[in-house]
Amino acid sequence: MRGNILGERFVVTSFGESHGKCVGAVIDGCPAGLKLEEKDIQKELDLRRPSNTLISTSRKEEDLVEILSGTFEGYTTGAPICALVWNKDVRSRDYDLIREHPRPSHADYYAYVKYGGFNDYRGGGRFSGRITVGFVIAGAIAKKLLMETLGIEIIGYTVEIGGVRAEKFTLDEAKKLRYLNEVRAPSRMAAEEMKTRILEARRQGDSVGGIVECVATGLPIGLGEPVFDALDSDLAKALMSIPGARGVEFGAGFKAAKMTGSQHNDPLVIKNGSITSEKNDAGGVIGGLSTGMPLIVRVAFKPPSSIAIKQKTVNLRSMKEAEIAIPGRHDASIVPRAVPVVEAMVAVVLADHALRAGLIPSILGGRKTGDLR
Amino acid sequence: MRGNILGERFVVTSFGESHGKCVGAVIDGCPAGLKLEEKDIQKELDLRRPSNTLISTSRKEEDLVEILSGTFEGYTTGAPICALVWNKDVRSRDYDLIREHPRPSHADYYAYVKYGGFNDYRGGGRFSGRITVGFVIAGAIAKKLLMETLGIEIIGYTVEIGGVRAEKFTLDEAKKLRYLNEVRAPSRMAAEEMKTRILEARRQGDSVGGIVECVATGLPIGLGEPVFDALDSDLAKALMSIPGARGVEFGAGFKAAKMTGSQHNDPLVIKNGSITSEKNDAGGVIGGLSTGMPLIVRVAFKPPSSIAIKQKTVNLRSMKEAEIAIPGRHDASIVPRAVPVVEAMVAVVLADHALRAGLIPSILGGRKTGDLR
Amino acid sequence: MRGNILGERFVVTSFGESHGKCVGAVIDGCPAGLKLEEKDIQKELDLRRPSNTLISTSRKEEDLVEILSGTFEGYTTGAPICALVWNKDVRSRDYDLIREHPRPSHADYYAYVKYGGFNDYRGGGRFSGRITVGFVIAGAIAKKLLMETLGIEIIGYTVEIGGVRAEKFTLDEAKKLRYLNEVRAPSRMAAEEMKTRILEARRQGDSVGGIVECVATGLPIGLGEPVFDALDSDLAKALMSIPGARGVEFGAGFKAAKMTGSQHNDPLVIKNGSITSEKNDAGGVIGGLSTGMPLIVRVAFKPPSSIAIKQKTVNLRSMKEAEIAIPGRHDASIVPRAVPVVEAMVAVVLADHALRAGLIPSILGGRKTGDLR
Amino acid sequence: MRGNILGERFVVTSFGESHGKCVGAVIDGCPAGLKLEEKDIQKELDLRRPSNTLISTSRKEEDLVEILSGTFEGYTTGAPICALVWNKDVRSRDYDLIREHPRPSHADYYAYVKYGGFNDYRGGGRFSGRITVGFVIAGAIAKKLLMETLGIEIIGYTVEIGGVRAEKFTLDEAKKLRYLNEVRAPSRMAAEEMKTRILEARRQGDSVGGIVECVATGLPIGLGEPVFDALDSDLAKALMSIPGARGVEFGAGFKAAKMTGSQHNDPLVIKNGSITSEKNDAGGVIGGLSTGMPLIVRVAFKPPSSIAIKQKTVNLRSMKEAEIAIPGRHDASIVPRAVPVVEAMVAVVLADHALRAGLIPSILGGRKTGDLR
Repeated sequence: MRGNILGERFVVTSFGESHGKCVGAVIDGCPAGLKLEEKDIQKELDLRRPSNTLISTSRKEEDLVEILSGTFEGYTTGAPICALVWNKDVRSRDYDLIREHPRPSHADYYAYVKYGGFNDYRGGGRFSGRITVGFVIAGAIAKKLLMETLGIEIIGYTVEIGGVRAEKFTLDEAKKLRYLNEVRAPSRMAAEEMKTRILEARRQGDSVGGIVECVATGLPIGLGEPVFDALDSDLAKALMSIPGARGVEFGAGFKAAKMTGSQHNDPLVIKNGSITSEKNDAGGVIGGLSTGMPLIVRVAFKPPSSIAIKQKTVNLRSMKEAEIAIPGRHDASIVPRAVPVVEAMVAVVLADHALRAGLIPSILGGRKTGDLR
Repeated sequence: MRGNILGERFVVTSFGESHGKCVGAVIDGCPAGLKLEEKDIQKELDLRRPSNTLISTSRKEEDLVEILSGTFEGYTTGAPICALVWNKDVRSRDYDLIREHPRPSHADYYAYVKYGGFNDYRGGGRFSGRITVGFVIAGAIAKKLLMETLGIEIIGYTVEIGGVRAEKFTLDEAKKLRYLNEVRAPSRMAAEEMKTRILEARRQGDSVGGIVECVATGLPIGLGEPVFDALDSDLAKALMSIPGARGVEFGAGFKAAKMTGSQHNDPLVIKNGSITSEKNDAGGVIGGLSTGMPLIVRVAFKPPSSIAIKQKTVNLRSMKEAEIAIPGRHDASIVPRAVPVVEAMVAVVLADHALRAGLIPSILGGRKTGDLR
Repeated sequence: MRGNILGERFVVTSFGESHGKCVGAVIDGCPAGLKLEEKDIQKELDLRRPSNTLISTSRKEEDLVEILSGTFEGYTTGAPICALVWNKDVRSRDYDLIREHPRPSHADYYAYVKYGGFNDYRGGGRFSGRITVGFVIAGAIAKKLLMETLGIEIIGYTVEIGGVRAEKFTLDEAKKLRYLNEVRAPSRMAAEEMKTRILEARRQGDSVGGIVECVATGLPIGLGEPVFDALDSDLAKALMSIPGARGVEFGAGFKAAKMTGSQHNDPLVIKNGSITSEKNDAGGVIGGLSTGMPLIVRVAFKPPSSIAIKQKTVNLRSMKEAEIAIPGRHDASIVPRAVPVVEAMVAVVLADHALRAGLIPSILGGRKTGDLR
Repeated sequence: MRGNILGERFVVTSFGESHGKCVGAVIDGCPAGLKLEEKDIQKELDLRRPSNTLISTSRKEEDLVEILSGTFEGYTTGAPICALVWNKDVRSRDYDLIREHPRPSHADYYAYVKYGGFNDYRGGGRFSGRITVGFVIAGAIAKKLLMETLGIEIIGYTVEIGGVRAEKFTLDEAKKLRYLNEVRAPSRMAAEEMKTRILEARRQGDSVGGIVECVATGLPIGLGEPVFDALDSDLAKALMSIPGARGVEFGAGFKAAKMTGSQHNDPLVIKNGSITSEKNDAGGVIGGLSTGMPLIVRVAFKPPSSIAIKQKTVNLRSMKEAEIAIPGRHDASIVPRAVPVVEAMVAVVLADHALRAGLIPSILGGRKTGDLR
């Protein structure tokens, strides 16, 4: 109970279930005067939809967003923005099996205990990846706000799937290529290998994990409110809230643990009259503050727990051990679809901190024609 | 500005600077009736002090805690607990150099920009590892609360330093050995190798990073308030707030990204009439909820940025490139001293969530003699 | 920007505008297992609708509630509950006049400045009394929760309208009569006089203010978290958020300022073996804690600012002084319709504090038939 | 448990007890670069001390403030400011009587129940007026911040004591006179009559209530974040947190309930090219937003509950009815001493909202000599 609200100044309240009427979010704290229409959000939601060939779930998610409040004549008003996607292709009978047989490594059983069996178990309910629709809605608004006010750009891509690692690519290549392939890889070669790996897993009725990397450019120095609301602290929290996330790291991350100070430290230099660092093992955040260098964060995702391979579980009614093979065609990897979600959460946190730091005005300029003043 | 408050029900407000009068914390939300004296906190603070042989900083930190409010006749009262350590051995003149020459990969320059040069730069001020004194104070209270009400135990240790990995140890061994060696390793062999690695780095004027692993046992099922206040989300945030943390992972963590679902999933079985899982790659948290299995979290720490080796930096006054070699005998690795800090933050988050879940009563039993009732 | 979220454990996020698509709320933190259907909310919303004879606004507000999330098979699930009313009879053209001519003592001009003219001015937008639909939705859930778990009952009524004061009535009479008359008065005589006063004001194109009193019975001792989240502090905040509220007082309230301690103090006595007080000038809250006596709070409402009488205003386009007479048939008094809104906000705050105090379990009993366990 | 933290951006954490080691506050969120020394706070604390002739408590409260953190070289650093007053003249034995005999209309009994008898009952502990020392500390900082950045001035005074009402005075007179008399009255005549009324009550072993009015000038238009964090909502919450407060009202307040719309509405006019209102029955806040007119708020205080006259109470040990006459020379009215406390809370809320509205920069100008840049 209580825990579905994120942020201090750009505040996201998440609601909705996988097989309920809708999934959505209320965003409180977006400044007035941001040009915002449903198509601005829709294009992000479209990136979250499963690809045609990797398609794993047979569920057709058109995912058309509807803005219910907070905009007027095409602009945000400063009022809370409620936006949602109506669930359509919901076949609840598919989930009767799950009611009695919690899926291993899924939240089924733990939610059943926590909520006394009252939770909407269909499709995982609140624990479904589908709730990230609301994340992407909030992220789309945050992204637009960041780009139009501070020129901050957020670029996510898949760096690893099922052990296949993308190597040798530039940020420019990643930016250009990632949404041109189904796995959101930053290079063509990686895209091919990763796709092969996913299809192989699917053939075996199995699934694979992976890693999403996300870079944000254009950050000013000093975003973050240490010690507890440090920029990396808040990013870690938001990113770990994505279903399936198992770890988060910044810059050199876990590799930093193997480095010496003289290797890891980023020397300070002057470039074009400004202080910057020669390299960026810090991943753009030091002492919980943005450094002005690109923010680099990686999120590890586990392989989806719903697999066709038979697994041990328990029958909740008989309290006897049982077996389960999850029917249907589930995502063999959520990593490609997690890319826009990671971007969304990074955007939400950056927008929150940019507002907290007073870097975004509470009224955006560019009044439309017909302005009274 | 604003960001020094953590938690919803067990709320920690951090204050103090490295070279100011004190470092401490206010803990708001601790139930009434917890037996609490200064010695309960002191023993945790003592574990945080530098070891005699690894000693890197010449600063003598006695670190005697003083409770200023919130207890009465040896018990917590339900009122906010303010407790602190008075700074003693503070030689500020050591830091004149730093005022002009920000240390690479330290917060010096970014804090200077964020706070307009008004920040207390001495010893890193708010960005010093010394502020974790306040974390340990709060953690000591949280630990006691968790143990006495729910029997939850928290065991941290060093699993990696400078590339040396502790292998082949049991939790029992770790629990017994970690505080018997200076590096807080879970096995004697690892302790020796790690110590050697640290001393080698120190000889070279360099520093090394490492990884702390922390296990919490005795957790009930269902701690965590997804989607945003998921247990792992809040742990990740709290742990990333420790100075030097660069990544956090749960259970299989980043390795999960390389696994298949059939490998990673933890099969559900019945043991002694209760549902549990055969293994624990989830690290005790699934869908943001505790599973009842031991919580397993790892935090990667970078090598300390203060090294004696000469590095490039910039002179803030002349705005010219310069060189800096950090004087004094700094920690060649903060990992050993980070162990009790990691434990503290895990305890704070678990106490917060246990209270949120209503598992800890607002008045603890065991009234002392002389009770009116 | 940001400010539409209320509460710590029973958290209400308000959204929607007077002339937008809908008005509603997301309630996060309601325990799982509360029987909740739309009709439970609808009956409270129906009390908020204007009466047939006092009817002042020609707007037909059917106000049918729709629950979008958070319930499953007739019970709350522990997930956030999004519920709303779709706006139907919205004639926006009525409000063209207001765009240029802010109404005196209405938020029009101040919102125009704060939101840079981007705010949805139609019908006052977010500043309309219509947003209290969301308050009543949240309050209906809170009321049901309080009654079913703690037996707390909340009884609001009109004690004063346009200078007419209700006198000589008992709480039982108030409870029985208040919703049997259009002005929500606690006695028949008061109801007649108040109605006459309102109709008189309407004939004159004017409006009248008044006072709502609200009593809550069945409270345990000790609700409230002083010093800042004192019970009366949080009630005052929530009640002042109702459009038109100008003051709040508890028990003897402002009259206490004229009393001596020997008059005002409520002597402690023993009744049926329990400690209670002989009288209740404290209004059930002392030191920010509930005393176990009935909570008594009063809210003063100003006369509605929209009146047909001509008033001075300013033309925002020409920046010249002008005159305005508000067209349409507006509420000549909002007090009768404010009664269920006051009850709602009291319920929301009490539910929040009962949850904070751990008095309401996180899973409610009474599992329905077909429970797995 | 938990409830001692106020604000979103200028956040006050209160700690300390009447007879513990100290009373104080941590202020998180004050911008860097505010000139702040102990004397800036001390002068406000001095106003809170009891007067020589009205002196009611024999306790000598020197109340010297000590800043423990958050300032450096005379300026705020952006870090949390911990400041406190060490309790000195603490005679705990005076309070043995109270342990067994809760004082009527004091929090004694309700705190005893809520905290299971663990609360520090001496002098009321956390429920003593003495905790307002921490409020005044926070308020002193907020006041300085508001004056130096926005020119906002806050002027409180006593408008009523024991039924004696101050009449016919201007704000200028109030500002000049209030701290020149012991009762903080806005006119000499009122001061005399009020003082007489207090002394009379004291002679009778009784106490009297009263009303504090507080005006804030220089506010911009648009402070406040409706609907829930409306300016008047947050002020009401903060002011009701002052021990003894029983009601809060804005502008015409409870009188507005008796007015018609045509009387109460403040006509909009143009003065010196700007839109303003002809009068200010709104008290400077409409729709939860500041209007640019002076903010006018009144707080009703009950008569102190500690009186020398014999009252009925209960013996907690024997659970039998008893009598109590509070020994010692207690405040016969807290109103004069509440004036700076009301000012402090108004300042804290205004600072919080000015920061939320982005009207105060996160770094204040006026760098001192020797600035690096």
